[in-house]
Amino acid sequence: MKNGSTLQLEIEKASTSKIDSVDFDNLVFGNIFTDHMMVCDYKNGEWRNPKVMPYGPLQLEPSARVFHYGQAVFEGMKAFKDDNGEVWLFRPQENFERLNKSSKRLAIPEFPTEVFFEGLEALLNLDREWIKQGFGNSLYIRPFVIATEAGVSASPAKEYKFLIICSPAKSYYSGEVRVVFAEKFSRAANGGVGFAKAAGNYGAQFYPTNLAKEEGFQQIIWTDANTHEYLEEAGTMNIFFRVGDKLLTAPTNDRILDGVTRKSVITLAEENDITVEVRRVSVKEIVDAAKKGDLKEIFGTGTAATINPVKGFGHDGEKFELEDQEDSYAQYFKTKLMEIQYNIAEDKFGWRYKVKK
Amino acid sequence: MKNGSTLQLEIEKASTSKIDSVDFDNLVFGNIFTDHMMVCDYKNGEWRNPKVMPYGPLQLEPSARVFHYGQAVFEGMKAFKDDNGEVWLFRPQENFERLNKSSKRLAIPEFPTEVFFEGLEALLNLDREWIKQGFGNSLYIRPFVIATEAGVSASPAKEYKFLIICSPAKSYYSGEVRVVFAEKFSRAANGGVGFAKAAGNYGAQFYPTNLAKEEGFQQIIWTDANTHEYLEEAGTMNIFFRVGDKLLTAPTNDRILDGVTRKSVITLAEENDITVEVRRVSVKEIVDAAKKGDLKEIFGTGTAATINPVKGFGHDGEKFELEDQEDSYAQYFKTKLMEIQYNIAEDKFGWRYKVKK
Repeated sequence: MKNGSTLQLEIEKASTSKIDSVDFDNLVFGNIFTDHMMVCDYKNGEWRNPKVMPYGPLQLEPSARVFHYGQAVFEGMKAFKDDNGEVWLFRPQENFERLNKSSKRLAIPEFPTEVFFEGLEALLNLDREWIKQGFGNSLYIRPFVIATEAGVSASPAKEYKFLIICSPAKSYYSGEVRVVFAEKFSRAANGGVGFAKAAGNYGAQFYPTNLAKEEGFQQIIWTDANTHEYLEEAGTMNIFFRVGDKLLTAPTNDRILDGVTRKSVITLAEENDITVEVRRVSVKEIVDAAKKGDLKEIFGTGTAATINPVKGFGHDGEKFELEDQEDSYAQYFKTKLMEIQYNIAEDKFGWRYKVKK
Repeated sequence: MKNGSTLQLEIEKASTSKIDSVDFDNLVFGNIFTDHMMVCDYKNGEWRNPKVMPYGPLQLEPSARVFHYGQAVFEGMKAFKDDNGEVWLFRPQENFERLNKSSKRLAIPEFPTEVFFEGLEALLNLDREWIKQGFGNSLYIRPFVIATEAGVSASPAKEYKFLIICSPAKSYYSGEVRVVFAEKFSRAANGGVGFAKAAGNYGAQFYPTNLAKEEGFQQIIWTDANTHEYLEEAGTMNIFFRVGDKLLTAPTNDRILDGVTRKSVITLAEENDITVEVRRVSVKEIVDAAKKGDLKEIFGTGTAATINPVKGFGHDGEKFELEDQEDSYAQYFKTKLMEIQYNIAEDKFGWRYKVKK
């Protein structure tokens, strides 16, 4: 194909649907995928032939760069269906821009906006039945880009594959979450890729998280690699501390992901006259606040869980429990965000994005 | 298959060989692979069904963990053929142990020694014709492990694939190498995965390296992420500085790869009464030494290039050139190592490993 037509979206519908075999009441996060996916290949210096097609396996050379050098980035988004059957995205432009920011840091060519949204909407429309109505039901959307070029030379690939796959999700009670503040292991270096949703950032956390689990914690709150004195993020969530009636959260930097839910919470807090201090948060002040009884809440923010309340934390061998708050900020923000996401509340910040049928 | 037989090596020979289509005089590093590969899958808590089989593409679910979370590690080794047609490996046990060290840090199950060596030797014997005689010719061996389990939950996979692929390599003149000392970007954090051959460590370097290339440098010498005052490693090579007649190199730690060539050079230096100081090497002392004319050589060590002399370096906008040394240490170590690798010199340290026919 020639100029102009290389970015025309092709649509190939699956001949059958597997939707009837899915138990939507008992979904495990990220385990089942819809009937279709979007793919687009980068070759000879351009993205070409975007296609929405039946979901299915990829065939790659064993020497494909992604297997060896982790040249891969991803995003996480959700689609929600309102009571009228309309499908909504939440601030998708933010995710799209962050995908390209991540790509740039990983030396992956940026993806064109129009192709992203055209493909995503076509995909969501084909798999519209997979998005279930009801507060808490959603479709988790996973755009990602992988380096597919064959050859183990340690240099950026010249060929890539962009994909979007979708997985139906349920708002589920994930059990009580207790976290431990990192004292030895680290997630990201200054000048590294911590701010990017780079594949390697995640695999690197599994081992320390396993060790934390053995001690009864579900997640780690990462501290700065240098001193371990400042609290940064939880690896798949940004993190907020409520001390008294104030909220504290770390500023984003080159180690910390600029979370969409995080920034939405900051906006909602400000709108509701809750003071948010975006600044370095020290381990010491949080431990001190916990000892004095001033630490009211800790919660994580992220697309998968929206708001994830933290029930307790560990530091330096000590364990702290947090009491349930009647005026829980975590609960307030969760409800507020979900009401916007499900088109129940007014969308005064223009965060909702309607998927055109 | 049942207990005991799950780790029995199966061998499937390729029906045809593509060796005749390969131009062995004009090999590009890591571009062409031999007729066979080794594969072994991890499933239900065990490695099973190791197989040497025809080289060919892998089929994976789009949701396979490796694409999303970079849960992948690798190794680099070489096989050499001596004048009698015997094939030799260089300290392969070191690579094997490091593979498992990397795997452990990435929460990947360790691979069994016997299966590794049995499969590797069977593979090398099947593809023996691909290993060409002659000083400088070798077969680059790439063992790697990828997380194959489907599903985008951010947790360690329960299924993996171990592979070994091989690529014929030539000792080639890669052009003059100039490096720049990192001042802003970083490779690894304290408490991170820098010491491991984790896939994500490599993709993260591509973008800063591209920027360095635009300024006329081929590689970056990474400094500590914290202060950028100490020189660590070059990302695919460990790095040595010769000041006067002394060699300086950084100690390995959780940020720096414990290179096999690096430790071999240290041993050879000590044997030859060259003083090696394994300690933090500051940017300042190297720049000062360069200005005083005391900095005689910089060279990198790694499996792919063995010894890679550095012709010049840049720091803080200044560029420094290094003069060729008649008594070059880089050249000395390269020759010495290659003589051992090709079974020309005595192997007093027991580094050679003969591949049984």
